[in-house]
Parts: sequence; C-alpha cells; structure tokens
Amino acid sequence: MEWEKLFAPAAQVDSGSGIIEILRLSEEPGVISLAGGFPAAEMFSLTEVREIADRILATKGEVALQYGPTPGFTPLREYLSERMKKSFAAQVAPEEIVITSGALQGLDLICRVLLTPGDIVITEAPTYVGALQTFSGFGAQVEEIPTDDEGMQVDLLAERLQELEKRGAQPKFIYVIPSFQNPGGTTLSTVRRRLLVDLAASYGVPIVEDSAYAELRFAGSSKPSLKSLDSGEGVVFLGTFSKILSPGLRLGWVAAPPALAEKIISAKQTNDQCSSSLSQYLALECGRQGIIDRQIENSKEILKKRAAALVAGLAQYFPQGTHWVEPEGGFFTWVTLPPTQGLDTGQLLRRAVVEEKVAYVAGCSFYAHGQGSNQLRLCFSYPPLENILLGTERLGKFFSAFYR
Amino acid sequence: MEWEKLFAPAAQVDSGSGIIEILRLSEEPGVISLAGGFPAAEMFSLTEVREIADRILATKGEVALQYGPTPGFTPLREYLSERMKKSFAAQVAPEEIVITSGALQGLDLICRVLLTPGDIVITEAPTYVGALQTFSGFGAQVEEIPTDDEGMQVDLLAERLQELEKRGAQPKFIYVIPSFQNPGGTTLSTVRRRLLVDLAASYGVPIVEDSAYAELRFAGSSKPSLKSLDSGEGVVFLGTFSKILSPGLRLGWVAAPPALAEKIISAKQTNDQCSSSLSQYLALECGRQGIIDRQIENSKEILKKRAAALVAGLAQYFPQGTHWVEPEGGFFTWVTLPPTQGLDTGQLLRRAVVEEKVAYVAGCSFYAHGQGSNQLRLCFSYPPLENILLGTERLGKFFSAFYR
Repeated sequence: MEWEKLFAPAAQVDSGSGIIEILRLSEEPGVISLAGGFPAAEMFSLTEVREIADRILATKGEVALQYGPTPGFTPLREYLSERMKKSFAAQVAPEEIVITSGALQGLDLICRVLLTPGDIVITEAPTYVGALQTFSGFGAQVEEIPTDDEGMQVDLLAERLQELEKRGAQPKFIYVIPSFQNPGGTTLSTVRRRLLVDLAASYGVPIVEDSAYAELRFAGSSKPSLKSLDSGEGVVFLGTFSKILSPGLRLGWVAAPPALAEKIISAKQTNDQCSSSLSQYLALECGRQGIIDRQIENSKEILKKRAAALVAGLAQYFPQGTHWVEPEGGFFTWVTLPPTQGLDTGQLLRRAVVEEKVAYVAGCSFYAHGQGSNQLRLCFSYPPLENILLGTERLGKFFSAFYR
Repeated sequence: MEWEKLFAPAAQVDSGSGIIEILRLSEEPGVISLAGGFPAAEMFSLTEVREIADRILATKGEVALQYGPTPGFTPLREYLSERMKKSFAAQVAPEEIVITSGALQGLDLICRVLLTPGDIVITEAPTYVGALQTFSGFGAQVEEIPTDDEGMQVDLLAERLQELEKRGAQPKFIYVIPSFQNPGGTTLSTVRRRLLVDLAASYGVPIVEDSAYAELRFAGSSKPSLKSLDSGEGVVFLGTFSKILSPGLRLGWVAAPPALAEKIISAKQTNDQCSSSLSQYLALECGRQGIIDRQIENSKEILKKRAAALVAGLAQYFPQGTHWVEPEGGFFTWVTLPPTQGLDTGQLLRRAVVEEKVAYVAGCSFYAHGQGSNQLRLCFSYPPLENILLGTERLGKFFSAFYR
C-alpha cells in the first residue's frame, strides 16, 4: 500500500514532530525541562480528586461509565455558566456552553466550523504553537500582529484590518490569548481590550478568546475578559480545566453564541461524540465543592515563587541586554536575547538538551513564518524551584558564550 | 455578528440534529428505547473500576492527572499490541497503535489524514450513521455496496471497483464493520473476508476495519479479523473500549501501518493533544487484571438473552413477511418490513416515540442516499428483558396496522 500517495494535502503540513522529539529528549534523566507547559504535580488536588472519584463511582457509576450527551452534561454546563459569571463577569447561558476534550478540541471544532483552506486567521505574534498547528492543518493563512509587553499591538491590528478590507479579504476570526499569553507571558491592557473588542465588532470579525491561564494571576490587577466587554455576539470563549484542575481529565469548554454553539456540537458529534463522562462528573464535583478554587489559590502561591526564581535566574545568568516579560500570572515568560552572530535558538535547542541538559521551546515554534531566532519560551510552572535556578544558570551560561 | 455568513461549507451539512432530538425524546419517562447503541449498565464492572480508580489515584495520581503523550501511554499501547494478537490474531507493534478518544475519533483522524472534499469512500449499505456523518463532514462522496445476511456483497464491490477504475476514480478507502455490523447485525463470512482483503489489495485501496463489536459473539463460530488476513499494509483497524469496558472513559485505538500511524498522531496533536490519562490507566489496569475479559463474558450472557427476547418479540408481533438478521453477537438487529403504502420508518419515528412510547432508529439514517424507508435498527443491548418484549410488542402492533 503506497500510503504516501493517499495522504490529503492537510496531512502534508509540518507535523510538529520536531517538538515531540525534543519533548522526548527533555524527559531523559538529568535534563531540566523549562519546555512543556505542564502544571506542577504539587498543584493537583490529589486527595480530593481521589475521594470524589470514589464517591462518583459508588453513587453514579452507571452514568459516569456511560456515553454522555454530545454538548456535555447539563449540570456541568450550568456550573460553568455560573463560573463564567463569577470568574469572567460574562453572561453565558448553559446552552451556549459546549464541553470539549480540552480547550484545543474547542479551537479545532471552531476551525472545522469556520475555516476553508485559504481563509485568513489573525493571531498575536508570537502565539500558541498548538493553535498555529491547528490553523495550518485547516489550510488557514495566518496574519500575525506584533506584540509588545502589553500584548497585541491593537493599533497595528487596526491598520491590518483596514488593509485587508481594501484587498477585499475578510478574516474569519482573531485568535488571542489576552491574559498571561502563551508564549509571551504578556497581558493585554484594559484599554487595548476595549479597543480590540470594538475594532473586531466594527469589522464584523469574531474574536476567539483563549482564556487558559486567566485565573492564575499572582501579581498585578485583574483585567476584564473580552467576553465580558462584548455587547454583541462577537466573542467566543475557550476555557479549560487543564490548568486549574487537571490536564489528564482532558476537559475544556467553549462559550459561543447560540448559532455557533449549535454547529460546534454537530462538529463534536462527528469528532469524538462526547467527552469523558467520568471526567465531567469529576470536574463538576471538584467545582461545586470549591476544590478548583482552592487549587487555584494554591497554584498561584507555587507559580509566584517559581516565577520569581526564574526572573532571578534570568537577571543573574543571562547576557546583558536580554529582555523578558515580568510574569504576573500563568506558566511562561518569553525571553529575547540580544541578536548576535551564530545565535539561533531553534538550531541550538538540541545542543542545549543533549549537552547542557536543559530544555526550552525555541522562539520560531511560536511564529507562523519562522521568526524568533533570538527568542525562547521558558516555563516556570512545572520544574521545582532548585531546577529553575539551575536551569536558568545552565542556559544563561550557554547563551552567554555567544556574546564573548 | 452574522454567523451564518461565516460558516465553512463543511458546517452546512446535515447536522444529524434530527437524531439528537429523537434521542432526547426517547429519554422521556415511560419511553422504551430500542434506539441508542449503549451497553447496559449491568455490563459495567463498577466495583472493579472503582477499586482500580482508587488505587491509580493513590499510587500514580500525579501521572493520571497530568498530560500524556499524544500517541497514548506506552504500556497501554503494549497491552493492546498483545490484545490484538490474542483477540484478533493480528501482529501489530506497539508503535503502530494510537490511543484515541473513542473509535469515532480514530475514524475522524483517518479522514483528516486521507480525505479531500470529493474523495470517494466505499461503505456497506446500510452502515454506521456516525461514520456517514463524519464522511459527510469531510465532503466525501460515499459509494454504497449492498449487503445481504452475510454482510457486504463482495462480488458487487468487485464490479464497483472495476467501474470506478474505468472512470479513473480511485477510492480513498473501504469502511467496513465485518462483525455484528452496525446497523445490520450481519457478520461477513470468512470466504468474503478473504475476497475483500485480496480485492482491496489488488486495487490498492486501504480497508478501514471497524471492530467495535467483534469480541461480543454469543452464538456461531468466530471469523478472522481482516487485519489478520492482510499480508501487506492495507488494513487499518479501529478498536474501542466503549463496548467491552465503558464508553464513559472515551477510549479507543487505531492499529495502522507506520506511515499512516505517524500522520494520525500528528492529526491528533492538533485535535485533542492526548486522550485522558486517567482513562488510559483505568483501561490498562482493567485489561491487565482480566476485568475486561470477564466483562466480555458477562456481557455475552446478557446480550444473548436480550437478543433472544428481541427475536421472539419480532416473530410474535411483527407483520408477516418481516425480515430480520438473527444476531450472533453485538448490539443490534436490522428489521426490514414488507413494503406497503404509507409506511416510512423515518416519518413514523416521532409518532412511535410520542404516541407508542417506543424508540428505534429509522432505516434512512444508515444510508448515504436516503433509502431504507421500510427498515429500522433495533438495539437489544441496553433495555432490560421486559422492556425488549414490551417494546417489540408495541412496535409490532404499531407497524402491523399498516398491513390491514
């Protein structure tokens, strides 16, 4: 069977296997990984989840082991409707919420419903590598809007939207991670949030707001969600339990206007039919019993200390002129090294992992068009404090050698 | 926001919301459902799953709540490699196995990798409604091969392949459920299996073997899997834990030749990144400790009695001349009523549910081009014995009225 001849064009795109390979290498013993954006095991509410799992299987096992409805269980959708109000000041009816198998599936289903090959998607630059891969799989054309320390430069977005309109090109949506961006670590200012929502509405372009890290603020003052600023039906919200409870449950949600929610449900029906019933009941009970809220508070404490260690390491060991974003929440910071001969974080990654025993994600992974050779994403959520210090020391010395 | 203007062509296709609506109605109190293909709660290994969940969360909680590798956990892939040998006589390396969020995701990922709108997929007629919806979502053109009581009529497939070749049309794959077909309840004979595998190989067309029910044989003699008959790399195997352990865990697998497995893993990475870690460890432990095998034996006993009740009800209450497939395994039988004026199982379904308080799935759902108006699928796996008898009595009398 000549499989190569049978693959569809979408399957010809870069598979991101480079990242998989590096992630595998970075799991070798002795390697300190500042790469993968995992929550730390210390954040998990292990005892509580264990107790709740036992009670669910004892009392509702027949439902938890059975197929569930495609949009998700109604009590969980109701819980999330309440949570959207409390945590994001957003009015979302339970019927507008679709339970997904992680936020990524939510994004994937949105793409399925909206994208035809050649369609334009606007993103921050840099942005989440998983989103870029998903867009690429649907044949989308990515238009990048530069960011600074306050996130997407909305004035540049305004110019781009005008240009596109002149060309007769209508972007399908704007994908944005407004809080503790992945990979940038930046948070969009309130002023820019308002401008963004108004701008998108005036051009009739929906916003997909990826809110994965928004509840994990450990410094600074909170910002309104884009969803809460939207007076129309222009913002689709992606939420996830991965960062506030457990990624292993594979559970997220989309809050979408009814017309879109209906299409997302249909798309989910042909993708995985429903998300895990057991996971849904676990998340629901952890939510209702306040375990999620306590885990968030605990996680913030952990993240705050680790972010401080990372920043200290950067200040102490990285070359002079290195720029990074001071994290106020989330899992990441984004490091820009002063450009110099021979420094390419993408090409150097393998050496860093194999020789220096420290892993990061190279800047180029987060751009659609291959920029970022002097940039890298560092994750402080997963490694213990001492490894963050040791990791930044190793990396800092490694990169400093290029500046002598 | 004018969402209707933004939807991609794929999102314009029939959403199957008719079926969702009927499934909802059939959950009303007092309605006997012979519709949805659910395993009975009595089949679940509740006590064992509860014990195992507790042990996993006590000993490996940090892994079970964390992200897992995209292709699935290695020990589970190794276990399934062994299981493929034992249960399906198929030699499949662990690397060729990709863990999926249900068998449907497996099929969806295969479509993603192989299909471009307009591509041809060959199916049995009738076939699984979920597969038809998935194919439709990818803009595939479905070529149906008629079935008889021994499954797909492979001689007609041979003719069709020849015709297509003459037209210069190369089908992307043949989708087939060889054992206890959904909805037909039929099992492909061994002779036809060999012919099918040879025929597909000679035309260079891969086979996607959906094996959801194959281990649930309660009568007759077992047949070799298509995967075991394939000497090349022409058969892709879809397996699921939904019918042998629990659909609520949302776990299945694909066994694919390496070139295809690699592409499926890439596609999964942009779809849901990984399947639930907790579910994977639950399935692995249930497999290793023989709980799955015991559940299969127990399920066969339950299914055998329920199938006998259904067949007795059909014989006693359905109109003379009604044809059905005597089930030897699986969840379903397929009923063909003698054609008569005014009988359309699709149009009558709402009345059956609302007035007669019994639900089935109408024949037309299982065809790509709307046949089957005198046909219906009855599921015997889910309702208790007394409801199967009462349900067939109600339905039989309901349909008999059309023959007076």
